[in-house]
Amino acid sequence: MAKNKKVTSYDVAREAGVSQSAVSRVFRPGLSVSQKTRDKVMTAANRMGYRPNAIARMLITKQSGMVAVIVSSRANVNYPEVLSQVSKQLAAQNKRVLLFTLDDPDGVDELFEQIWTFQVDGVIALAAHFESHRLAQFEEHDIPVVLYNRNVPDSMANTVCCNHELGIKQLITELEKNNPKKYLVLSGPKDSDVANERREIAISLLKQFDVEDVSILYGDYSYQSGRDCLAKWLQKNPAPDAIICSNDTMAIGVIDEARENHNIHIPNDISVVGFDGITSSAWLSYQITTIKQPVEQLVKAAVAMLLERIETPDLPPEARVLTGVLIKGNSVKRP
Amino acid sequence: MAKNKKVTSYDVAREAGVSQSAVSRVFRPGLSVSQKTRDKVMTAANRMGYRPNAIARMLITKQSGMVAVIVSSRANVNYPEVLSQVSKQLAAQNKRVLLFTLDDPDGVDELFEQIWTFQVDGVIALAAHFESHRLAQFEEHDIPVVLYNRNVPDSMANTVCCNHELGIKQLITELEKNNPKKYLVLSGPKDSDVANERREIAISLLKQFDVEDVSILYGDYSYQSGRDCLAKWLQKNPAPDAIICSNDTMAIGVIDEARENHNIHIPNDISVVGFDGITSSAWLSYQITTIKQPVEQLVKAAVAMLLERIETPDLPPEARVLTGVLIKGNSVKRP
Repeated sequence: MAKNKKVTSYDVAREAGVSQSAVSRVFRPGLSVSQKTRDKVMTAANRMGYRPNAIARMLITKQSGMVAVIVSSRANVNYPEVLSQVSKQLAAQNKRVLLFTLDDPDGVDELFEQIWTFQVDGVIALAAHFESHRLAQFEEHDIPVVLYNRNVPDSMANTVCCNHELGIKQLITELEKNNPKKYLVLSGPKDSDVANERREIAISLLKQFDVEDVSILYGDYSYQSGRDCLAKWLQKNPAPDAIICSNDTMAIGVIDEARENHNIHIPNDISVVGFDGITSSAWLSYQITTIKQPVEQLVKAAVAMLLERIETPDLPPEARVLTGVLIKGNSVKRP
Repeated sequence: MAKNKKVTSYDVAREAGVSQSAVSRVFRPGLSVSQKTRDKVMTAANRMGYRPNAIARMLITKQSGMVAVIVSSRANVNYPEVLSQVSKQLAAQNKRVLLFTLDDPDGVDELFEQIWTFQVDGVIALAAHFESHRLAQFEEHDIPVVLYNRNVPDSMANTVCCNHELGIKQLITELEKNNPKKYLVLSGPKDSDVANERREIAISLLKQFDVEDVSILYGDYSYQSGRDCLAKWLQKNPAPDAIICSNDTMAIGVIDEARENHNIHIPNDISVVGFDGITSSAWLSYQITTIKQPVEQLVKAAVAMLLERIETPDLPPEARVLTGVLIKGNSVKRP
């Protein structure tokens, strides 16, 4: 056998002259198998260096082969695509995803208990917010953690993140070509780190561009909140010239509400920009000008960083920031 | 302590008068901790019946506490919603999701090897196609399996599925109110069981409704394939009166292509129906008439069935079929 090829139960079965399921039964507790078969299998397995199960592997390598991936229900990221990439890229490194969904902050204690119990080799948190004393717990347990789509300064966690500042600057530069007077910033929820970061960057950049008329609205990242925020605004105010949405999903809600219920033309009457570059942002009905997150590269960075920390726990924390791609859609008025 | 409350490391820490991380270090192989702390923790842990880690629990209960969830990249189901529901409902039963993504059929051997290795308690397959000899392997390994959104007759697997026949009948009944002459059936890919089932049901029902002019097109469930199929059809043929799409995503592609590139009005010129009831099917720009899958109930049935099989392996296979909800959108011409 080539030295680096992982020995499978199928290889052992071939060598021992038995079925694969016979091999598997030998190594599964509580299942019956004849002594003769057991002997054949054990001889072949020992000779080939076969590591049959999670228990054996954990006892030998002190690694469970599992990475906890925590997904918040508040996830704004292109969640299915990110999760699928994480699963694929970890599988390529012979690690498996143990999935946790975090719905309310009260569930954190139990979630952490599960993470200690399953002795995962590391943690990737997608869009989940953890207080710094929580992040410290990972360190106390010697479990490396990578925060995806987070930029937590001065923290002990590793982070990967898209460059929000550069992206939002590119979007505002597009909008400013028409010299809009009245801006709306449609922020994500106040308890989202990313939403707060994107909103504050937009406000600060608009100041640098000498824009004076800026109003802030708060949605919850959902389609419906995009619709509701615009409808409520239009009840008492004239339409703005430009709307900066903190994600694409709210931008889609804004466009639908404007077009279908207020007969407002996008982009002639209002220019709209989003963020993330989700699949539906490119659909013909929307064609949103946005920043596409480099999901594959972000995940690659997150996985690489996590594996480095698993191998070398003492590495200092690191923040990796990748640049998104400006998508020039059809939601910003052409000058 | 109340008898049914699960003892956590936090409880043991309180009892032993040490920090939670000290408790955790005692039970994690290879980490240092003082003998004094170790003694305190072990005394408290033994008295309280604390099961500290996956190895200990697996050795005692012969259960890993993990359920493998296999997601095909061909997944047509409302995948993020389904996965999130599966994770939540299994967590409520103290089971965790070990996630596997299946991208190409060649990966099945390795995927199965991983499933045997991690000794999962059961398997839920979302939209993954397995040959019957593959399903037999689960049985040989005494691992219960539930196929989600599948209806495999005569198989040894448990299945949960939405009632496609009833749903498609409701959709055709809506379409028939206008007495359309020319029908298109836009099918999903030929290697998808669900796509084949939905297409054949539609064709068979249209015959029962005495519809004569039916053409079949094949997409791959994606938005782009919906657009491409319609564009190609219109190059050589007049627009049909009605299009039955095998999922909502292709219906959205059809509507965008018709409206944006061919100046065809939906529903006045063409009536379009979808299937699944995904979130974007209800967006104002689309408002698709479709069948909404009862995701929460389907997952509840899948999880309940799996847990029954884990407890009582000899139960006969069972197929559960739940009824979807007809959503009357705005994509079918009103009579």
